[in-house]
Amino acid sequence: MPLMKPGWFCESLEERTAFAVRISDKLLDEVSDFQRIEVLDSEALGRILLLDHCFMVTEKDHFVYHEMLVHTPMSVVPDVRSILIIGGGDGGAVTEAVKYPHVESITLCEIDPLVVSTCRKYFPAVSAGLDDPRVKIVHADGAAYVKDFKEELDLVLVDSTDPVGPGTALFSPEFYQSVRMSLSERGAAVFQTETPMFMPDTFAMAAQNLMDVFGPSKARPYLITVPTYPGALWSFTFCSKSLNALDPIHSRIPTFLDGRLRYYDVDVHRAAFALPVFVRKLLERR
Amino acid sequence: MPLMKPGWFCESLEERTAFAVRISDKLLDEVSDFQRIEVLDSEALGRILLLDHCFMVTEKDHFVYHEMLVHTPMSVVPDVRSILIIGGGDGGAVTEAVKYPHVESITLCEIDPLVVSTCRKYFPAVSAGLDDPRVKIVHADGAAYVKDFKEELDLVLVDSTDPVGPGTALFSPEFYQSVRMSLSERGAAVFQTETPMFMPDTFAMAAQNLMDVFGPSKARPYLITVPTYPGALWSFTFCSKSLNALDPIHSRIPTFLDGRLRYYDVDVHRAAFALPVFVRKLLERR
Repeated sequence: MPLMKPGWFCESLEERTAFAVRISDKLLDEVSDFQRIEVLDSEALGRILLLDHCFMVTEKDHFVYHEMLVHTPMSVVPDVRSILIIGGGDGGAVTEAVKYPHVESITLCEIDPLVVSTCRKYFPAVSAGLDDPRVKIVHADGAAYVKDFKEELDLVLVDSTDPVGPGTALFSPEFYQSVRMSLSERGAAVFQTETPMFMPDTFAMAAQNLMDVFGPSKARPYLITVPTYPGALWSFTFCSKSLNALDPIHSRIPTFLDGRLRYYDVDVHRAAFALPVFVRKLLERR
Repeated sequence: MPLMKPGWFCESLEERTAFAVRISDKLLDEVSDFQRIEVLDSEALGRILLLDHCFMVTEKDHFVYHEMLVHTPMSVVPDVRSILIIGGGDGGAVTEAVKYPHVESITLCEIDPLVVSTCRKYFPAVSAGLDDPRVKIVHADGAAYVKDFKEELDLVLVDSTDPVGPGTALFSPEFYQSVRMSLSERGAAVFQTETPMFMPDTFAMAAQNLMDVFGPSKARPYLITVPTYPGALWSFTFCSKSLNALDPIHSRIPTFLDGRLRYYDVDVHRAAFALPVFVRKLLERR
């Protein structure tokens, strides 16, 4: 017996909790070499991308995730020229990154070509940045690909799925070390590090491993609220060799974006790093 | 046909989205004079209180709501002696408030006696503060009861349900005005003001009405993340005649609570008032 009645899509977390949406149409259901890819329409959340039956992108709330993934490091790292995005085949991170005129090159390393072509077709606004001439798309294993770079990238964004299936390698300490090695001296990386609310062990392991690789004061988790992700309270971790994540410079955000972003500003940036007590405790070694 | 298969409880928001939990036991299902009251057990969220089939309290995440409702104003308002809590029959707000030795009286005005007796029986930790000798429990309509007080309360906490059924009166401008009249010159009130993510109009109306009554700079929404509430991103609004909500004083929190709270500290307090751009825009008059 299915979890929900027909006409609804439901993502359950370990068959213990679930978030569901009533759907108005199913536009795509395909299996690529890596995962199942579905596109739904809904009244409440707009269009929805599922990977392996998990919410990845909804028109309703993706701006929270993509703005906080990209503009947070962009306002801290000085003079970003080169960006590597690992995962992120929906193009949402690329679309935020191309808003910076001084960025010279953006490489999107997405292992699954079908994610990219699906989002180009079904999510034109989210993926619009993929057409920017500074963007290069590579379909490769991000964990292997990042090893080609040595102290040269200004920003690496790890926009991964969960640590199962194709996403597993992007949560390994070896991968974290490769990302660190790829960064220029002034560079930074942001990693998607899951939810401290419903997956505290996964969050704690990812954040602690990043603290081991980058140093405890140079790997700083920050929080956003994405209603369609399990537990809703979601984390990224900002990592660098030398930068202070809590010192965003307003003038690094292009003037034409003032008032056009929907979530991010430098006050929200600083606030995202103020971790609730229970989250801070998850970062202590047990 | 029910929304979900047997063995799960599911709260839907307008039959468009839903949050669900697999339940291990149903301990209570009664109808009071005011509402349906259910108590469930679950592996993922612990024990759960439902009012009219909506999540009110879960053992898993209630600390976020209750700590941020109570400690936020307690660290701003100087020398709080008298507190009135309207709604809040679960006792969770009372339990946080009795942690302050200098508070002399706490009145809980909960319209439904069955909520209080249910929580005493099934949620002993959440409701523990109800046994404190400084606590008086009144079963009355909060909107009428608050009119008995004139410029004498140091803190009013409006821990209401949604603006339907018994909660409707607690979202009216007349009620907001009565609360303002009840406050001492140094006093403050905090109102539960719903979710800006999934109920933007309800949030905007509540916050704007409070800004009308208290003055635009003296009614300040702040945000928390409660995974079991619809939209997860939830709001309170801090209101006062003269205080700066963004100036919490760490020393107002009793020393013995240091390290014992699970969500609140003064950095989290300040961060909660840093509103995402789309939330700020909801506060602008249209």
